[in-house]
Amino acid sequence: MSEQILLSHGSGGEMSHQLIRDLFVRYFDNELLSGLSDSSVLGVCPGDLVFTTDSYVVDPLFFPGGNIGKLAVCGTVNDLAVSGADPVYLSAGFIIEEGMEMETLEKIVKSMADEAHNAGVQIVTGDTKVVNKGKADQLFINTSGVGFLRRGSFDINSGNEIKAGDKIIINGYTGDHGIAVLAARENLNIHSQIQSDCASLNKLISKIIRNIDGIHFMRDLTRGGLATVLCEISEDKFYGIEIEENHIPVREEVRGVCEMLGMEPIYIANEGKFISVVDPEEADKLLSLMHSEKLGQHAAIIGEVVEEHPGRVIMNTEIGGSRIIDMLTGEQLPRIC
Amino acid sequence: MSEQILLSHGSGGEMSHQLIRDLFVRYFDNELLSGLSDSSVLGVCPGDLVFTTDSYVVDPLFFPGGNIGKLAVCGTVNDLAVSGADPVYLSAGFIIEEGMEMETLEKIVKSMADEAHNAGVQIVTGDTKVVNKGKADQLFINTSGVGFLRRGSFDINSGNEIKAGDKIIINGYTGDHGIAVLAARENLNIHSQIQSDCASLNKLISKIIRNIDGIHFMRDLTRGGLATVLCEISEDKFYGIEIEENHIPVREEVRGVCEMLGMEPIYIANEGKFISVVDPEEADKLLSLMHSEKLGQHAAIIGEVVEEHPGRVIMNTEIGGSRIIDMLTGEQLPRIC
Repeated sequence: MSEQILLSHGSGGEMSHQLIRDLFVRYFDNELLSGLSDSSVLGVCPGDLVFTTDSYVVDPLFFPGGNIGKLAVCGTVNDLAVSGADPVYLSAGFIIEEGMEMETLEKIVKSMADEAHNAGVQIVTGDTKVVNKGKADQLFINTSGVGFLRRGSFDINSGNEIKAGDKIIINGYTGDHGIAVLAARENLNIHSQIQSDCASLNKLISKIIRNIDGIHFMRDLTRGGLATVLCEISEDKFYGIEIEENHIPVREEVRGVCEMLGMEPIYIANEGKFISVVDPEEADKLLSLMHSEKLGQHAAIIGEVVEEHPGRVIMNTEIGGSRIIDMLTGEQLPRIC
Repeated sequence: MSEQILLSHGSGGEMSHQLIRDLFVRYFDNELLSGLSDSSVLGVCPGDLVFTTDSYVVDPLFFPGGNIGKLAVCGTVNDLAVSGADPVYLSAGFIIEEGMEMETLEKIVKSMADEAHNAGVQIVTGDTKVVNKGKADQLFINTSGVGFLRRGSFDINSGNEIKAGDKIIINGYTGDHGIAVLAARENLNIHSQIQSDCASLNKLISKIIRNIDGIHFMRDLTRGGLATVLCEISEDKFYGIEIEENHIPVREEVRGVCEMLGMEPIYIANEGKFISVVDPEEADKLLSLMHSEKLGQHAAIIGEVVEEHPGRVIMNTEIGGSRIIDMLTGEQLPRIC
């Protein structure tokens, strides 16, 4: 293969075929993809179909704890998982800037393959476009995902099951991904040890759904962070949400960077965190289950659904006050995912 | 809405929600999307699942006969259709350059909605990312698609059914899309009346599959054109392909621009053309059916599968000679789709 990506790698001709064979098919190695057709015939569906898509434009491409490829697999896997589905198949669409180093692309593709293997999903169909130098920023990746709901699985996707009294549980520290990416931007001169929490949550979530009866809602906490998701699920509803600032797991270092930059950890993007809204009777059982798993070992109950202040999220602060939490306005951290 | 796309439209917060509500949900109008969750629960699959993805980076965004939005719907619909599936659901992922005019984006989104309606598919899940000015070229769109094979439908996806004697039929003029986009590039100063052939082929193809028994293969003729697809299906096979140059439908104007630029119509991308490889007994019936439909009215038998020169595509030229057709090498027309 050539050492750099050329426009002809996106031509649909000889060079495109080489790239697909020698890079994508080699790493994503599965029979469905190796047919090299423009679509992939996947056979009978073992449950109700769930479909999702996300594009990834993270800058820089590599950051502590991950890269755009790993992120593109985890993010789409997690979108399916929190809707109660088992993620099974992914597509991968690459938009590549002419001149990108082949070695860099290969590292990213390898990461995608590793993470797909880890999550138990297959990348079964793909597409590559190359744009002239200066018309994109190295690499953008779209992954779409297909998963299946277990037959008879309950409706955790709509939020319609949420009721006053439910507990809100997060599976660990919030804000790691956003701060890790921010610190990786050379121009910012922030020195930190923070690793992105980028991880596929489907195995943990599947275990939860199989073992805990009272899960009323789940959502991953990506762009907009914890705060935005809580606002989304209470908006225009007959219930409110109350959270306790000192129960929200935040690493000291994340807190420090946030203070320095005038940001709040609850608005920072995560890539391996989700909230569960759960029947209060089942909350302790869920917490114990999470604590027994690596991706949930720092889980905490951070608040509850209340009858008061319908439609509003209130945070009781560490210093004893309370304030309204609004959805993120403006953009603190562009290209975080 | 603001008049331009801002970074905060990609934040996942308040502005993202506004954009989704006021633009995407408004035009793509369907119940599955309006749930505004990160994934869409689609229910029971009515047949074997087929999955495909494509990113669109066409330059310019608007060209005679279409725009990037219409293209993004047709292209993905067609990938599913030629594999024998009924396209049903699409995802739409937008990567937008900061500063893009909202009015332009709205026109494109409206086109997508119109074409989806026209093709009978629903856009059920989506994603928007915004990158800083100068880091993308206005707009890139990824559409992934899900379709279902009719139970018991035959295998036209693999090419394994192709045999010597089969006729090769194209549904009309080749090269229109590529030349239309090329002519729309202001710097080239080519004046032409050519319209892109950009169209959703699923209804025509569905009719063919229901009415013609001997279809052995179908493929749409996008990047790399007719020549590249013929090379793909004969590569490493025990049969060859022979085509007649003077049977291939090419508009005079397309031929003229190609001659001027030193290109060949059979390598130019189409967005509404496909070939069928069909049992010779059924070829005339297929041709008649096509001629009765708008998207097939200029259909022609352009050649056949032969026992001679296995693995090779030979074109008998207008002037009485014959030559080997190779896969497209290099890149004649970057960002044509």
